[in-house]
Amino acid sequence: MTVREITGFSNPLVKQVRALREKKHRRASGQFLAEGLRILTEALDAGVAPEMLWRTPESAAHPLVHRIEAAAGETFVTSADILSKLSGKENPGSVVGVYREIATPLHALDRHASDIWLVAQALRDPGNLGTMLRTGDAVGAGGLILIDDCTDPFSVEAVRASMGAIFTQRVVLARWDDFIAWLRAGPGQLVGTSLNTQTDYQAPRYAAPTFILTGNEAQGLPPDYEAQCDLLVKMPMRGKADSLNAAVATAVMAYEVLNQRRGRT
Amino acid sequence: MTVREITGFSNPLVKQVRALREKKHRRASGQFLAEGLRILTEALDAGVAPEMLWRTPESAAHPLVHRIEAAAGETFVTSADILSKLSGKENPGSVVGVYREIATPLHALDRHASDIWLVAQALRDPGNLGTMLRTGDAVGAGGLILIDDCTDPFSVEAVRASMGAIFTQRVVLARWDDFIAWLRAGPGQLVGTSLNTQTDYQAPRYAAPTFILTGNEAQGLPPDYEAQCDLLVKMPMRGKADSLNAAVATAVMAYEVLNQRRGRT
Repeated sequence: MTVREITGFSNPLVKQVRALREKKHRRASGQFLAEGLRILTEALDAGVAPEMLWRTPESAAHPLVHRIEAAAGETFVTSADILSKLSGKENPGSVVGVYREIATPLHALDRHASDIWLVAQALRDPGNLGTMLRTGDAVGAGGLILIDDCTDPFSVEAVRASMGAIFTQRVVLARWDDFIAWLRAGPGQLVGTSLNTQTDYQAPRYAAPTFILTGNEAQGLPPDYEAQCDLLVKMPMRGKADSLNAAVATAVMAYEVLNQRRGRT
Repeated sequence: MTVREITGFSNPLVKQVRALREKKHRRASGQFLAEGLRILTEALDAGVAPEMLWRTPESAAHPLVHRIEAAAGETFVTSADILSKLSGKENPGSVVGVYREIATPLHALDRHASDIWLVAQALRDPGNLGTMLRTGDAVGAGGLILIDDCTDPFSVEAVRASMGAIFTQRVVLARWDDFIAWLRAGPGQLVGTSLNTQTDYQAPRYAAPTFILTGNEAQGLPPDYEAQCDLLVKMPMRGKADSLNAAVATAVMAYEVLNQRRGRT
């Protein structure tokens, strides 16, 4: 554990860390950014320490910062202005952490670790992705499996929306064919949320583990993906627009599955 | 119905419409922006025509554009570049509409128009606000009542996230004391989502009309607001973070109320 002071905007390390706001630099270094004491504490509680902790001089007094610093690889003490520059947020909450990307390969995933899994296909909005991770944490899901070309789960926006669930949920990046092959090699019910069905989402009794599949925000699921689901279900829609936000639809489904498991419905 | 061609970025009307991306200009003119054929069509289906329609020359051939244009006050034909400049989005989907702001005063709200109403307090994120409107539309809510200093429901971001529900849901801006006085003058159960309760959200039978109250994203509801609720309820949390996105929590609650009404649980 080393502590260094960095005061210059032009310091190469500042530039290098700031570059992690871009996907290509995250891919190149295998690192990503998280900001704010709440999220960094969630990480630590999940057993994940930052490779680098960036903090202001004042924040050293905070007991949570002290805990994170004790676990961090290196600590850099810097100004609030530089912290803002790193995270791109006006007030990043006094700490920024640099973490190792932690995607799980499909073959290493233990489907028995939970009876609910979230699966998203071609999800484009980082806020939706982060919100799904957060919902996954809340319902005790095992993780989020990202199919096809999804927005990057390690972007600053997705990590922020996850409120720390990026550290508690397994994240898998997979192609559809590989996912289906893996899924069919063991137990698991694949349930797609769709408008192309008359099956009400409260009608089936879901089988464990349940894989809740949500499609792209604008297009929904491709027809051939829907055809490979065990079940398509639909939430009741009483309005004019016949649509729900993708992260909301996922959450409503996930709570239905959880409610069935806890024996309330 | 008039149609004019506008080609210059420096045209005063372009500047005036573009200024509607800022709250102070929306308040001054009483107008707001919506973009994309899907949202403008939702508006028209809800009986709301734009005061101005901005479109590209090519989009005239689209039958939906034709319908909107027939109802619009004025139509301006312009380039895709100027459309992008108006909406701030790279691809605003070929049409931008300027609409009259349509907030409903509390005293003009008919609580009997629906048996579900959404209420948000000090909501800060425009995406969450728009998502709540969209969820409100889906569950057949009457509208969204915004308490205290919420993000502007007429911002481009909120309108976009609402996917047109800004036109189908009543929007009310109210102070808490006024809201409570109005609420208590008639039937209505005020249900707050909170972590400060042991009451499971599936335990109560909700009374109609149900007002689902969600607090600020970071702080939750103020304690004295919670004290004035008829009921506080909590979703089960199986994870480490004990939190849900505000729009997600609202949606999970709203579907529970809807499910009770449709006799499934």
